Amino acid sequence: MPDNLVYERQTYDAAFQGSHGAFSEDAAGLLLPPNPELLPCARLEDVFEAVHRGVARYGVIPVENTLAGSVHQSYDLMSEYDLTIVGEAISRIDHGLIGLPGSSLENIRRALSHPVALAQCEMFFRRNSSIEPVSVYDTAGAVQAILKNGDPASAAIASRRAAEVWGGVVLLESVQDHPENYTRFLLISKPMEMVRPQTVNYKRTIVFRIANEPGALCRALQPFMMHGVDVARIESRPVKGSPFEYLFYLDLVGTSDYDQMYQAVEELRSQALSLRVLGMYPRATQT
Amino acid sequence: MPDNLVYERQTYDAAFQGSHGAFSEDAAGLLLPPNPELLPCARLEDVFEAVHRGVARYGVIPVENTLAGSVHQSYDLMSEYDLTIVGEAISRIDHGLIGLPGSSLENIRRALSHPVALAQCEMFFRRNSSIEPVSVYDTAGAVQAILKNGDPASAAIASRRAAEVWGGVVLLESVQDHPENYTRFLLISKPMEMVRPQTVNYKRTIVFRIANEPGALCRALQPFMMHGVDVARIESRPVKGSPFEYLFYLDLVGTSDYDQMYQAVEELRSQALSLRVLGMYPRATQT
Repeated sequence: MPDNLVYERQTYDAAFQGSHGAFSEDAAGLLLPPNPELLPCARLEDVFEAVHRGVARYGVIPVENTLAGSVHQSYDLMSEYDLTIVGEAISRIDHGLIGLPGSSLENIRRALSHPVALAQCEMFFRRNSSIEPVSVYDTAGAVQAILKNGDPASAAIASRRAAEVWGGVVLLESVQDHPENYTRFLLISKPMEMVRPQTVNYKRTIVFRIANEPGALCRALQPFMMHGVDVARIESRPVKGSPFEYLFYLDLVGTSDYDQMYQAVEELRSQALSLRVLGMYPRATQT
Repeated sequence: MPDNLVYERQTYDAAFQGSHGAFSEDAAGLLLPPNPELLPCARLEDVFEAVHRGVARYGVIPVENTLAGSVHQSYDLMSEYDLTIVGEAISRIDHGLIGLPGSSLENIRRALSHPVALAQCEMFFRRNSSIEPVSVYDTAGAVQAILKNGDPASAAIASRRAAEVWGGVVLLESVQDHPENYTRFLLISKPMEMVRPQTVNYKRTIVFRIANEPGALCRALQPFMMHGVDVARIESRPVKGSPFEYLFYLDLVGTSDYDQMYQAVEELRSQALSLRVLGMYPRATQT
């Protein structure tokens, strides 16, 4: 848990998970005005906690990678905390295999990185079965760790920038399964009033829970069909303690007639066990 | 990769991922006749490979845990391999913190386990911040590893049975986030002809890909509403190399009139970029 006393001396523009050089730090650069004051956090929940306590105005969290899929923990924390999504960014991800200065690819026996980064490099690990993937809290932190540890058989999977920040050497470029690799990040803040959007270029994200009974999922999606609201993404997460019940997260795409969007969500609300609008925010384009 | 020459000497009843004492081995017991000959595999893909090559008649794979959510890798491998789902089992999961004989809880600094098992014990790690979670290939194998290594500061998160198999000691019972904890396993085999079911007590699992265009997801689900087919579960996985396109996996619940089920799937097939029926199998009940 972050230490309150140290924290309250300063308010940061945004908190992110990882060390300096993390991909979330790059995303913060896309989402905030130039030169933001950023707070690196060890764990994703520390990011939510920092925003919740007002230590950081915003949090930058990864939710989806185009090779590895959803970042489950971000979804779970969005339900747990009463925070609002106010923006999104899509960031290109290019992983290098990073070693100590002087070490070479042939000597590498283990590669440390964030589990979602390791999942993006599955084919690399299949081809190089002598290199063992090792999960750690973040990509840039893995570079920091191997440099501190000094073992030439250890490498990290992280960005070129992380290598530069911590003094590592790129032994192999672009080790992810496919060059087209993107992560979608969300910008979160304390709850704020949502204003009626003036364009169609927005998304609305909701989370709801429905009873575990036949037809419930199809009935829940029906209002969106009826009102012509596009569901861009559906994600389900288990409800802890209620086996085979789920929370569903929907990303809804802005409609020219906002009332259609509003109506569809209210119709679902009337049949759901619970429903919360997590935010309404401008749509990102790929960079 | 498994060694063909060694393998071809014997055909196993089923392959599972993990060492003896793994939860998948328990599930094999629920799905197969008594005393099956089982092949432990280091990685999940080795299970698919063993079934594909005919080394094992069946494979037992975890697909969903009621605390941690989906096992993504199983879904990805189901698309990659041309195998068929022929059964499912729901197994209660109870994790212990397992140490060396003579070691005590206060000394433990790291706990090794499968990442999906670690995700089931998130609250345990929040409460015990001096214990670091360490990802390894499997739960029972983690017990085996700590006993081999002999470090009294290392523990494993695994079943009581895994402790018994490998000679570990349960330092703490039921360390998962909630006592109600289940994993759903599937039984897979080489492709076989699917017979028209005689009861409603079955599931049909399909995977399909649709174009990344507005309304595509809702249109894809419409046939199931029209034909009264219950969608028990929806899971999406990214298409590698096509950012923000997804493969959707649906578990459909048996209908009294099988033609309705058949028609709904065929209507979806006519609009999908691709669609494959992964299997039709008797529904499991919780044990």
